[in-house]
Amino acid sequence: MYSKDIEDFLKKNNISVGDRIEISGEKGKFEGLLMPRVQGETEVLVLKLDNGYNIGIGFEGTEIKLIEKAKPKKPEKKHKEGKGEIAILGCGGTIASKIEYKTGAVYPAITPEELRMTFPDIEKIATIRSKSLFSLLSEDMNAEHWKILANTIVDEIKEGVKGIVVMHGTDTMTYTSSALSFMLQNLPAPVVLVGAQRSSDRPSSENEMNMLNAVYCAKKDIGEVCVCMHASMNDNYCYLHHGTKVRKMHSSRRDAFRSINSMPIAAVNYMNDRFEVLSKYRKRSQKGSLKASTKINDNVAMIYVHPNIKPKLLESLSDYDGVVIVGTGLGHAPTNPFDDRHARPLLPAIKKLIDSEIPVVMSSQTISGRLCMRVYAAGRLLMGAGVIGDGADWTPETAYTKLCWVLGQTKDMKKVKELMMTNIAGEISERSVMKEEF
Amino acid sequence: MYSKDIEDFLKKNNISVGDRIEISGEKGKFEGLLMPRVQGETEVLVLKLDNGYNIGIGFEGTEIKLIEKAKPKKPEKKHKEGKGEIAILGCGGTIASKIEYKTGAVYPAITPEELRMTFPDIEKIATIRSKSLFSLLSEDMNAEHWKILANTIVDEIKEGVKGIVVMHGTDTMTYTSSALSFMLQNLPAPVVLVGAQRSSDRPSSENEMNMLNAVYCAKKDIGEVCVCMHASMNDNYCYLHHGTKVRKMHSSRRDAFRSINSMPIAAVNYMNDRFEVLSKYRKRSQKGSLKASTKINDNVAMIYVHPNIKPKLLESLSDYDGVVIVGTGLGHAPTNPFDDRHARPLLPAIKKLIDSEIPVVMSSQTISGRLCMRVYAAGRLLMGAGVIGDGADWTPETAYTKLCWVLGQTKDMKKVKELMMTNIAGEISERSVMKEEF
Repeated sequence: MYSKDIEDFLKKNNISVGDRIEISGEKGKFEGLLMPRVQGETEVLVLKLDNGYNIGIGFEGTEIKLIEKAKPKKPEKKHKEGKGEIAILGCGGTIASKIEYKTGAVYPAITPEELRMTFPDIEKIATIRSKSLFSLLSEDMNAEHWKILANTIVDEIKEGVKGIVVMHGTDTMTYTSSALSFMLQNLPAPVVLVGAQRSSDRPSSENEMNMLNAVYCAKKDIGEVCVCMHASMNDNYCYLHHGTKVRKMHSSRRDAFRSINSMPIAAVNYMNDRFEVLSKYRKRSQKGSLKASTKINDNVAMIYVHPNIKPKLLESLSDYDGVVIVGTGLGHAPTNPFDDRHARPLLPAIKKLIDSEIPVVMSSQTISGRLCMRVYAAGRLLMGAGVIGDGADWTPETAYTKLCWVLGQTKDMKKVKELMMTNIAGEISERSVMKEEF
Repeated sequence: MYSKDIEDFLKKNNISVGDRIEISGEKGKFEGLLMPRVQGETEVLVLKLDNGYNIGIGFEGTEIKLIEKAKPKKPEKKHKEGKGEIAILGCGGTIASKIEYKTGAVYPAITPEELRMTFPDIEKIATIRSKSLFSLLSEDMNAEHWKILANTIVDEIKEGVKGIVVMHGTDTMTYTSSALSFMLQNLPAPVVLVGAQRSSDRPSSENEMNMLNAVYCAKKDIGEVCVCMHASMNDNYCYLHHGTKVRKMHSSRRDAFRSINSMPIAAVNYMNDRFEVLSKYRKRSQKGSLKASTKINDNVAMIYVHPNIKPKLLESLSDYDGVVIVGTGLGHAPTNPFDDRHARPLLPAIKKLIDSEIPVVMSSQTISGRLCMRVYAAGRLLMGAGVIGDGADWTPETAYTKLCWVLGQTKDMKKVKELMMTNIAGEISERSVMKEEF
């Protein structure tokens, strides 16, 4: 609710959340849809502009005019929820946000009817069934949500769906895609995560392109967790990425998602039935039955190495079951092998963690490239202390979710190391000279 | 020193560190230069292969053959250290590592003579003077080193040099380049950081290309801190990057350094006098005299947001003077605006830090793109709590060094915010549609 003043004013002027209004004030004239109040800002009207962005405008001293009432919802045509070839699972995020604004609800919600209304072409590609699991911003997702999501996917597969599409916020989409990759092995159906970078009131071409391509991919002969997102600034195709080898590399661009140390699975466009394979992927038809190991340990810290980092920070992690270090370069952290008098090595603190049976896993803040801890003294010292990761080319996010998953399977230090260094879901690529752009 | 067994064996067989040897064992036959022992590995011989990589081979059960003794050092031709147009300051790192292996010394050291021997063409470009400041791996560098380096640069400028080249390890090079950019404003001479991604025994074309281009750039009409590194996988040119807008984006490739949310200053090649300007830069001839504010506060934490992150981690930072959050997407951290029952919001802990006068600054793990905290509820809540950064397009590293520097100037919360959001050294670009690749 807005403040009483505002609510009274709106009521008197027959304005409701969702209506198109014009606000004139000191900063100019703005037209857009009135949004629901955001926590803590009772005196600020939130307006969704036609460019998709929200602005807040102080109520005081403004003139407000109703332009158009929100269209009343059409009475829902009853659509019997059939079996459906593809199950669409909603986890919130921007891709679902259109509905939020239309209904004036505070959180994203996707009903099967709303999905069909938003993406009318969807059933030209496949019959669908859908379920809303969470209504949150993806940065609020954690291991609890991964478990619910993984278990729901298992249920859907048992129900006989041909593929699963997961609508997900983009911020932490690749944490979820990599976590699911470890939790659900030998998939008999693809699990395709999809999202949108730009919120919009009408089904934007981005939302639609991503969504329809995701459904298109979910029908293919694929047996792994993947991410389907825009490939370019134009709306002409998407990339289907391996779930463990992809990362959001731009805060706002539609083509923000990039495969890291790997090529995408394919370039895809449902419109002209394009599925151009770019790298090897697991097929659903491959042998092996679904192996769901959804146990996961969320008591894992992730620490970013930087100049001035204090050994104390590492020392304070003794309550965790595991630690991922986002190190520098080939997999480094301050070790001070040359006895510089100003250096503050983390090595003793790292060693102490490992000696008390808390596995420490390396990753690199360079994002691209492979860890090689044998080149420099720092890497060799860290390896000597028992830091895991030499030779891996995982992203920091995949290293993190993998350690969470491995610690859900075992706490034996030797087995943890063995599992971490075994390629389970494509997270450690074979060595090769990477020629593609990074 | 290696273990006594190994030392005895080497002595008996007239093998010294630096000699070319062949080791045959279980894993095959390896030829390379014997390296000095690394801490903690007394029973493992370290061999530098011709491809530039080091391998460790257990001494036991191997056969070792001397191939060639290291050439004795030529008696040094006395070269009077003159004034020099360009000052070269050595901070260790791979670019200096060649000398390490030749001399058998444990750490990098650059004397003026060694520099001239390694890069014989250097004085065709400029007369040089040089100084070795530190001998360490760059991940061991911190604010203490930045201060010494900044003060030395001020001294060199007072001595009248035309430009400064800083030989630096690549791992944390862009932390240093951004820190120096804030510490040394209105530079009357360029400060060019240079390094090498691949260590090598002989002056590799990479080392040489980077180094000679750096010296070439240090003579130009530039008045800012920059980074000169390989632009492509070929040895045909370098990019000169703005010191605040560059990042190491690959663990091993020679073209690992990329400008972020900016174009490089120029594409350069000393060989054909190419200095192709790609973006605006500050000229040394511009008005304003050198402003050295080398005070810096190193009591700043950097926290990477990830699923499962515990509020406790943030709560434990009350001893710090500032905190940089490497958030998700447009500048997010868990805030749980939609009351999800599994979410663990960091918002209260962040608010508590700010309320106790510890500034909290946002950056994004997407690396590329601008922060925009007005789009989603999470961003608005964080801004409401006082998190600084909306609209900035700095890298996490630059956000970090800037906060360290700002807290060296003031602790007043209002002034900290003002300074943080003021573009000081190109770290916040003007808004524009970025068309280049990211």
